[in-house]
Amino acid sequence: MGLTYTEHYNGSTGLTVGLGKQLFHEQTAYQLVEVFETDTWGNLMTIDGMVMLSQKDEFVYHEMLIHPALISHPNPERVLIIGGGDGGSAREAMKHPSVKHVDMVEIDDAVIRASKLHMPEVGDFDNPKLNLLIEDGIAFVKNVTKPYDVIIIDGSDPVGPAQGLFQKQFFQNCYNALADGGILAAQTESPWVSSYHDSMRSVFFALDDLFEFSRMYLAFIPLYPAGMWSMAFASKGIDPLNQAILEKAKTACSTYLTDLKYYNEQVHVGAFCLPNFVSNIIRR
Amino acid sequence: MGLTYTEHYNGSTGLTVGLGKQLFHEQTAYQLVEVFETDTWGNLMTIDGMVMLSQKDEFVYHEMLIHPALISHPNPERVLIIGGGDGGSAREAMKHPSVKHVDMVEIDDAVIRASKLHMPEVGDFDNPKLNLLIEDGIAFVKNVTKPYDVIIIDGSDPVGPAQGLFQKQFFQNCYNALADGGILAAQTESPWVSSYHDSMRSVFFALDDLFEFSRMYLAFIPLYPAGMWSMAFASKGIDPLNQAILEKAKTACSTYLTDLKYYNEQVHVGAFCLPNFVSNIIRR
Repeated sequence: MGLTYTEHYNGSTGLTVGLGKQLFHEQTAYQLVEVFETDTWGNLMTIDGMVMLSQKDEFVYHEMLIHPALISHPNPERVLIIGGGDGGSAREAMKHPSVKHVDMVEIDDAVIRASKLHMPEVGDFDNPKLNLLIEDGIAFVKNVTKPYDVIIIDGSDPVGPAQGLFQKQFFQNCYNALADGGILAAQTESPWVSSYHDSMRSVFFALDDLFEFSRMYLAFIPLYPAGMWSMAFASKGIDPLNQAILEKAKTACSTYLTDLKYYNEQVHVGAFCLPNFVSNIIRR
Repeated sequence: MGLTYTEHYNGSTGLTVGLGKQLFHEQTAYQLVEVFETDTWGNLMTIDGMVMLSQKDEFVYHEMLIHPALISHPNPERVLIIGGGDGGSAREAMKHPSVKHVDMVEIDDAVIRASKLHMPEVGDFDNPKLNLLIEDGIAFVKNVTKPYDVIIIDGSDPVGPAQGLFQKQFFQNCYNALADGGILAAQTESPWVSSYHDSMRSVFFALDDLFEFSRMYLAFIPLYPAGMWSMAFASKGIDPLNQAILEKAKTACSTYLTDLKYYNEQVHVGAFCLPNFVSNIIRR
């Protein structure tokens, strides 16, 4: 490990990771995509210098972005993933036997190539249920004709091409692209990074205005700022904590989701339990 | 901010904080105690180079070490805190109106002095309920004659003087020092730091052997390794998730615990919901 990389998130505070060999480096039309070896986390992907995922911790983010939403839908068949080029979200979604079709709309194919080359276990790109589209997801959701049961927003931080993923018009289009009973999940940054609080409020106020039901939930992600990450759950009426869904979570975790390392029926509940300072960020 | 400080926890991975002026520096008989200014976290205390607390994030650790235990006891009057020299744990314990007496046994008075000088809001040292003893807590619990309702283990990492706080004989002595219905809570390191897994197992296996009830719970602590911190709850029979306790938590948070920034009746439940990889660490 020669080079040390520090992603600063609060003033001079940051996460430091020693970087080994650089495996991928591509300045695309949208962003700088890089992959490095590390001593502890396997290979690590960064976009514009921000940690996206490592081979060793990606399970947290992907399990927690996907399963609360997919479990909460009684019969999710059609799933749309905006972003998610590394393939981890699609991989988790396709573990649900009811899922017949996943459209994954990634703006930058360099992310997909980097993942396939250097994190081959993250994506399940050969799965016939997966339909990959290299397009702008923000434009894509404006023109959906066949609605989805679940939409997952798996973008990067609200700078660069992902900025539009935090705005109300985008969520209005998502709402319109969802079938009756549809569910949306989105990554919504760290509550400890105050410079992102405006983006968080923008998302949660929009979801609160547009959807019948919306809630924030949390996951521990060691390589993201402060280790605390928030996500949004919004639905056309379904409460993820109703008894039938908790039963489904339990059954799923003992049948088709037995290989998970983070999510289980208890985490499904616990993730929605927010510390006071977190709920205060999005209190209207 | 001149100096940058990185606490490494997994190989080359670590938390980096820019340090301003050094406010306190004392090599005691036990350890090196330091306090620094920072740009984001207020003043920061380290012991032997490991982050103990900052003024801005200490609320998480102290609220979560104290309130799950104190709420779960129907009428906690006598509390023993082993370590906890910064004073934050005692401060939180004394918020409970039933508490009449807190013995705080800190081995190193330099920690207390550093806290009083540079984090004056953390401790509540003038509270008449607090009895401060500068002694070895491991020896202290061997000779308790008047039992406690709650014992809190607020020590540092299992190296140096705190090593004994992770061993079975110590917990046996704690058990003996607890009254009927007594409860113990302890900090037990980060599940993401594999070099501490043996210490974690040592604690949880001991508690499982000795106590009628024991469980791990979690809190998001931004300045601790990986942002995920585990704590132990053990009792002479009380289940912290029973309905009467959840009711008590709700009442407390709307009456005498209204100033909290982290703990609430939902967090009381959510903290005990463990991801699979975490529960697997302490599975026997």
